[in-house]
Amino acid sequence: MKPSVGLIGLGLMGRPMAANLLKAGYSLTVWNRTRARADELAKLGAKVASSPREAAASSDVLLTILSDPPALEAVLWGSDGALAGLRKGSVLVDSSTVAPELARRIAAACAERSADFLDAPVTGGTWGAEKGELVFMVGGKKEVLDHIEPVLAAMGKRFLHMGGHGAGQTVKLAMNLILALEVQALVEALQLVTRSGVEAARLIEVLQSSMARAAVFDVKAPMILAGTFAPSFPLRLMHKDLAIAMDLARQAGLQLPAGSAAEQTYRAVRSSSSDDPDYAAVARFWQ
Amino acid sequence: MKPSVGLIGLGLMGRPMAANLLKAGYSLTVWNRTRARADELAKLGAKVASSPREAAASSDVLLTILSDPPALEAVLWGSDGALAGLRKGSVLVDSSTVAPELARRIAAACAERSADFLDAPVTGGTWGAEKGELVFMVGGKKEVLDHIEPVLAAMGKRFLHMGGHGAGQTVKLAMNLILALEVQALVEALQLVTRSGVEAARLIEVLQSSMARAAVFDVKAPMILAGTFAPSFPLRLMHKDLAIAMDLARQAGLQLPAGSAAEQTYRAVRSSSSDDPDYAAVARFWQ
Repeated sequence: MKPSVGLIGLGLMGRPMAANLLKAGYSLTVWNRTRARADELAKLGAKVASSPREAAASSDVLLTILSDPPALEAVLWGSDGALAGLRKGSVLVDSSTVAPELARRIAAACAERSADFLDAPVTGGTWGAEKGELVFMVGGKKEVLDHIEPVLAAMGKRFLHMGGHGAGQTVKLAMNLILALEVQALVEALQLVTRSGVEAARLIEVLQSSMARAAVFDVKAPMILAGTFAPSFPLRLMHKDLAIAMDLARQAGLQLPAGSAAEQTYRAVRSSSSDDPDYAAVARFWQ
Repeated sequence: MKPSVGLIGLGLMGRPMAANLLKAGYSLTVWNRTRARADELAKLGAKVASSPREAAASSDVLLTILSDPPALEAVLWGSDGALAGLRKGSVLVDSSTVAPELARRIAAACAERSADFLDAPVTGGTWGAEKGELVFMVGGKKEVLDHIEPVLAAMGKRFLHMGGHGAGQTVKLAMNLILALEVQALVEALQLVTRSGVEAARLIEVLQSSMARAAVFDVKAPMILAGTFAPSFPLRLMHKDLAIAMDLARQAGLQLPAGSAAEQTYRAVRSSSSDDPDYAAVARFWQ
């Protein structure tokens, strides 16, 4: 019999993930701070829990995907939080992007309640979430991952075991560091050419024939050239991830000169943007 | 009739470019500071000039490809330099990577001698030079590029007109800024995961399934994981290009936070390396 599944956090990623779980035939209980979003899922067949605790109590596998650490902590440890409702022998899977240290703290709290934990942040964006083609970077016990892989398979195409608790988060933060720097490299290079009187499109043209081409440029270069930044991955979340990565580096006594420059650049744009743009809006740094 | 061609600078790039010109049936005169390398080309059918001036005097199209601005300036303006020998109506094509301002100075010197000039730095590396698949980024008059394109076609597959004199150099510097930052992003991300106890190979595995994948990683990641840095594109040249790009930014009153961090990081590794490694050796920053 299929395990019952719970999902907490119906944002840009959580909604299509929930829809795909229902499509795959899972019995799904959802909870979201803004109730209206849960009600939309109810129309597709989801049960709506009245609290994170109730969602946990109804689930063999409980997924959480929240936008930042405070939101995740509130859902887990707050009043009527999920940890208090966790079933013995159940598995909590967190797909938020948070610090590895927080992942390890959650793992310990699960162990106290005889439940298992996986940190399982994802890559693939809203497009991957909708198509069910997410890639999960997983930290925790390999056998727990093997056990719940059918559930993840409803939402993704790859489930890569990165190591013990927190390893999924570590790799996700490292990957976002690369993405943030790739996009910053592109906008700095575009500034250099346009300020020197060369058209931006000329650089893009050459990039496509060169070793410098990166997959993310296909998506972000058109946004940058057009100056429109509808959020696919919001800059505030990219900056949040960079800040967590820099904290992690600091704790490890590690210098990251380019990463540190990126964190400061994204921070500057975040604090000067009155809207909620995609992270390609780091191009606004020079406005 | 095919124009006579001269080529000055028989380094890692110049040698295969010269060989491809001979293969395409061009009458070729070469000059190189170290005579032995010119003699190797003579065995393939090249004439060997006794000075840059003589090479210029024998050529309708004269190519220069030197490793840095001082080497280029010596070849052009030094005693028996190429500029003094340039034929009226000939075209000087410089494929070195230098400042756009130097390209414009050479263009002016050519104009005084009734010759044309193109700055035409290349991308594709030694592999592209050997296969005749270089991409040329060209600054100067479009009609001059059209006129000499058959000569470039012996060495490359694309000849992209970037704008007026110096525009080729500007785009090349911007592209190398992107490459340098992509590789630095990779090594910073690898430091972050390995210092956190996660294997480097795990990050590489995830990268390949993600938007963060970049063409340069396919070549540099194996070097970084193995810790062996046989020079494909030497770090000292990448640092030279970053330093020129930072000069250009400074002149334009332009802040490049990540580029500046990269220039400093590559500089540190350059000054502490006793060998001549590939630029992937920026990974040594943390040793």
